[in-house]
Amino acid sequence: MVLKYAIIGVGGLGGYYGGRLAKSGKDVHFLLHSDYEYVKNNGLKIDSVKGDFHLPVVNAYKKSDEIGMADVVLVCLKTTNNHLLKELIPPLLHKKTTIIMVQNGLGNETDVEKDFPNQAIAGALAFLCSSKTGPGQISHTDLGNLIIGTHSNCDSQIIEQITTDFNASEVETKFVTDLVSARWQKLIWNIAFNGLTVVLNASTSDLMNDPASEKLCKDLMIEVIEAANACGLKHKLSLSLADEMLNLTRNMPPYLPSMKLDFDLKRPMEIEHLYTRPINEAKKHGYQMQKTKILEQALIYLS
Amino acid sequence: MVLKYAIIGVGGLGGYYGGRLAKSGKDVHFLLHSDYEYVKNNGLKIDSVKGDFHLPVVNAYKKSDEIGMADVVLVCLKTTNNHLLKELIPPLLHKKTTIIMVQNGLGNETDVEKDFPNQAIAGALAFLCSSKTGPGQISHTDLGNLIIGTHSNCDSQIIEQITTDFNASEVETKFVTDLVSARWQKLIWNIAFNGLTVVLNASTSDLMNDPASEKLCKDLMIEVIEAANACGLKHKLSLSLADEMLNLTRNMPPYLPSMKLDFDLKRPMEIEHLYTRPINEAKKHGYQMQKTKILEQALIYLS
Repeated sequence: MVLKYAIIGVGGLGGYYGGRLAKSGKDVHFLLHSDYEYVKNNGLKIDSVKGDFHLPVVNAYKKSDEIGMADVVLVCLKTTNNHLLKELIPPLLHKKTTIIMVQNGLGNETDVEKDFPNQAIAGALAFLCSSKTGPGQISHTDLGNLIIGTHSNCDSQIIEQITTDFNASEVETKFVTDLVSARWQKLIWNIAFNGLTVVLNASTSDLMNDPASEKLCKDLMIEVIEAANACGLKHKLSLSLADEMLNLTRNMPPYLPSMKLDFDLKRPMEIEHLYTRPINEAKKHGYQMQKTKILEQALIYLS
Repeated sequence: MVLKYAIIGVGGLGGYYGGRLAKSGKDVHFLLHSDYEYVKNNGLKIDSVKGDFHLPVVNAYKKSDEIGMADVVLVCLKTTNNHLLKELIPPLLHKKTTIIMVQNGLGNETDVEKDFPNQAIAGALAFLCSSKTGPGQISHTDLGNLIIGTHSNCDSQIIEQITTDFNASEVETKFVTDLVSARWQKLIWNIAFNGLTVVLNASTSDLMNDPASEKLCKDLMIEVIEAANACGLKHKLSLSLADEMLNLTRNMPPYLPSMKLDFDLKRPMEIEHLYTRPINEAKKHGYQMQKTKILEQALIYLS
């Protein structure tokens, strides 16, 4: 089965995964905004720890209706731009189009389901250190694997094909049966490192190299795990995930998470999806994320 | 009764209160360090919201034994310098000398009692916006009242005289029967504003003018009140103190608390006395100061 992919949002995330798919010969169509002219003329350049590559010609578009119907829509926007989806997605849809929310946070699929209730909707979590360093220019410094899970109306054959396509494109991709649990699992890392790198003006390595901030990260991580488990997940998260993620981070090169880049570049931060929603979700289930709340408020103040 | 006062530490605190006592004709002796030469030659200049004044000649000393025995020792050092007291205090003592710890934090009197177990020891809390702006130069921008409480071996007549002396020197001074409760009460403000002005690089007004940071201050304050009450105080603290202190702060001019000044000037911060001790004391009584702990760890990281 040959799938037509539309990539919405061509930053560190969409540029990297879309670029990987295109490199391996998949049918990939990029919806661009400010970088349209540059990418149309120069393609995409990906500097990757796994080996740099240049795609001199890519399918670049300014508007969704120029792309037309696609089989898979990879939403790689920041959640702070999700209000645009109502306009960007419709021209891409046929009856069986699968929308995949490749974003951090909670509730992303439920949101998009409100506008497209009959569509196949899935979610993906990117374990990726990558950022856009210029128009059409992506810098990939570590990791890169994807986790995919279904939300509603998904066709298992299509999901399988997407997984196969990614794996054939040097993107290690795993299907999970519990997307919500996977979202919480990713929040363990995100809640600790996104917020603290902003508030403490630090890289991940700075935070790992000081016992006080390492403890701070761990305490936040434990709280996220407890919150997730309070929300009645199908698969309970183990407390040992905190140490696993700290070890992972210890072995990464110094990294500035996306929220830190957003803050430094005065772009909106994903506070709502990464902090407010988990806090509210846990609260609904009787768990107070006291430490996370402190960080959320500090971030709102700084934003 | 005429009391001889020795002031250890002539910064925003010791300079202001010592200056007030000297201005009203009390017998005041200042122990100075780096500013000795300047103050010896030029006296003290206090720019005060209540009216500026200049004391062209004050009793300035470089060493405690030049002061000799005093009736009252006002310890106005930062707690980060308390290791010096073992050397600075002894030459000032006679049998009935009262040592008053005019400092923030918890456990200050118990500490000094270890070295001077038979001495009269009291504590005082300064509600004062004041800082040293140059050698012998104090800027007093708001408030100024003192609260005094006894710790051990105090003579009530002497304490009464001290209170009278301060009140006669334009320093509104109140005696309280429960010093520990007063220390916790002051921590309500200190824990919120000292740490947050550092971590968020903000003045008190910045924090009050944003709903997120105001909420953050209030949440921290509530936690301190709950912690204090968990420690079994004689007088329980009311939750309404949080709003009272927020209102007080709202009506103050923009202020940088001492910890923020310490941080900006790369001096040690009073993390131990203002954060670690309350956290540990509450923990001993079964209360986890989760929010304060986050702030403590962030401050240790930044220090």
